[in-house]
Amino acid sequence: MKMAAAGAAGVSLAGCGLFGGKGKKNLPKAYKVDGSARMALSWEPYELQLRHTFTVSSYSRSTTPDVQVRIDYDGFTGYGEASMPPYLGHTVESVCESLSRIDLAKFSDPFQIEDILAYIDSLGGIAPPAKAAVDIALHDLYGKLLAQPLWRIWGLNPAKTPHTTFTIGIDTPEVVREKTKEAAGKFSILKVKVGQSPEKDHAMIEAVRSVTDVPLAVDANQGWADKFDALGEIYWLQDHGVVMVEQPMPKNRIQDTAWLRERVDLPIFADESVQGVKDIARLRGAFDGINIKLMKCGGLAEARKMIAVARSYGMKVMLGCMTETSCAVTAAAQISPGVDFADLDGNLLISNDRFRGVTLDRNGRLILPDGPGLGLELV
Amino acid sequence: MKMAAAGAAGVSLAGCGLFGGKGKKNLPKAYKVDGSARMALSWEPYELQLRHTFTVSSYSRSTTPDVQVRIDYDGFTGYGEASMPPYLGHTVESVCESLSRIDLAKFSDPFQIEDILAYIDSLGGIAPPAKAAVDIALHDLYGKLLAQPLWRIWGLNPAKTPHTTFTIGIDTPEVVREKTKEAAGKFSILKVKVGQSPEKDHAMIEAVRSVTDVPLAVDANQGWADKFDALGEIYWLQDHGVVMVEQPMPKNRIQDTAWLRERVDLPIFADESVQGVKDIARLRGAFDGINIKLMKCGGLAEARKMIAVARSYGMKVMLGCMTETSCAVTAAAQISPGVDFADLDGNLLISNDRFRGVTLDRNGRLILPDGPGLGLELV
Repeated sequence: MKMAAAGAAGVSLAGCGLFGGKGKKNLPKAYKVDGSARMALSWEPYELQLRHTFTVSSYSRSTTPDVQVRIDYDGFTGYGEASMPPYLGHTVESVCESLSRIDLAKFSDPFQIEDILAYIDSLGGIAPPAKAAVDIALHDLYGKLLAQPLWRIWGLNPAKTPHTTFTIGIDTPEVVREKTKEAAGKFSILKVKVGQSPEKDHAMIEAVRSVTDVPLAVDANQGWADKFDALGEIYWLQDHGVVMVEQPMPKNRIQDTAWLRERVDLPIFADESVQGVKDIARLRGAFDGINIKLMKCGGLAEARKMIAVARSYGMKVMLGCMTETSCAVTAAAQISPGVDFADLDGNLLISNDRFRGVTLDRNGRLILPDGPGLGLELV
Repeated sequence: MKMAAAGAAGVSLAGCGLFGGKGKKNLPKAYKVDGSARMALSWEPYELQLRHTFTVSSYSRSTTPDVQVRIDYDGFTGYGEASMPPYLGHTVESVCESLSRIDLAKFSDPFQIEDILAYIDSLGGIAPPAKAAVDIALHDLYGKLLAQPLWRIWGLNPAKTPHTTFTIGIDTPEVVREKTKEAAGKFSILKVKVGQSPEKDHAMIEAVRSVTDVPLAVDANQGWADKFDALGEIYWLQDHGVVMVEQPMPKNRIQDTAWLRERVDLPIFADESVQGVKDIARLRGAFDGINIKLMKCGGLAEARKMIAVARSYGMKVMLGCMTETSCAVTAAAQISPGVDFADLDGNLLISNDRFRGVTLDRNGRLILPDGPGLGLELV
């Protein structure tokens, strides 16, 4: 056999230590799947109490319906959550009905997440928040069985998490100023809900700007029906330190959004226009990026595929959330290293969080927990 | 707080066993990354000896240049491999030059695979087989640090691996009959290299068909320059029990391939037309599926993204290989559960394999090893 000089100072390839580390203290030990244990799925409605009444262009509310989920397996517990803000059309009843049709006891190996999620899809008509809740609990369990945090298992660098935006809801200029003052010292980017009318939107932005000059993201929630109006508004916003615009026009107005995108510099992100992987292709050219939310797409497995697909088109990625406990917010935060924007403030908006998970540094950057799986602690 | 009845027989969400399993014997233990250890990359050229002289439409050979790679880290070893069949334009020299520019000692955390691969891309001009070799070794190491096989970490069901095709190279009808007889009892699908001339191709297929009626995949390796000729050939092949056609036309003839695809029933797969994620979008409509090879795309991380992107288009996926040891073939096999076709016979074609990894059942179905990482044993 012909052999050239070996690389890296001639290190031999001889076979000592094939599986490595014998006799060392820092040896990992595998959880062994022996096929005898079964997963048990349980759930409980849990109404989220909002710290402040929340207003966007179409409605306001002070609670959010939510269902807390757990999967028990061989002494381990995975936590999940379904959050159902009313405008998405899901309810506690529809989510519990979906969960009642999911029989995880069919599966003896919780590592086989692809099969389990395919089974859930095969049931038909499962509410996406219900699928997300099971997906999140499965991944929490999976990480605990691997004894490592999900971000580490997924090869991500926790030092590369983004700063989350903090959302300033639609309100009077006085209240907006007050909320902005509360937030301004803690966050390095704020998100403002617009899409009412130019007068009200400008008053909102000017109220925020009277307090802080941090960059602003704006979310129009499909609020601009006319592309010329949208164009004028985006120019105005750009002059006021706005750095991105989310869902300027109604979700199916893809051509008009493409027209708009050709004429503005700010990146335009899709929210209502995108649910899962299948929706991304038609958004090319119309949007610069997509807002991935676990409750829309059905969980972390789909979210990770969406990131791969969006990146393959050169599209940007942001991660969003609903009002949620730290369970679902921490799940989204696990995949946040390297995304372009994060809007993961849903746990900060409620007064009855059940978990401690992702936290924020003094500038609003996401700090991932070190614990296995999601790294949650019950509080 | 409003509480409806809890699901699944009223199981409480109270917080016992948050991280689960206390006092149990089947507890996983984490490898702890403390930042003090560094990765060391080493490599060695290793000429693969082919069992039979190998012929496709454009050349034949009896060896394949190869470089064996390892990454040592804190007493653990990850194995990787670069295989360089001459027609792809890479050499032992170009791969070793690429490897010599990759400084893994910069990284103290081998879990941060996304950062490490982004660093390799940032170097510019790294030969894809060199990147693949490092990616494979990183994933082997990563799986060993998680103490689980990659297929399990990636949520895949080892019972869903495909049957690999076994390739019958271009040769005289006598030799083809002989090789087919050897293979026919062991494989439930064969792959035949075509694309020479209709006469020679038909003689090949008829020689195979004189021995066995198993389904056949054919690989034309860009051999048909004329779309009408290709159409006629595919009709003929379909009548002879062929179930898929790989790369019928030259790699940049996408429009002609789309024309062809509209007129045939057999699925058409891209091989030379696709290298990585960025190439897939332009193949939509022209190809039914893509052939992913680690040596083309640069490793398992890219391959997994390619699967996500191809699936998002509704495209089929096959996994291919070069002549390689069981190192790189086993790496590809780790992601094989659920793919549509596998052509992972490269390790069977050499007489100096260094590893035992993926094996075959009596019908040629891939059997994944249970060991951590790639699950390789040196032989």
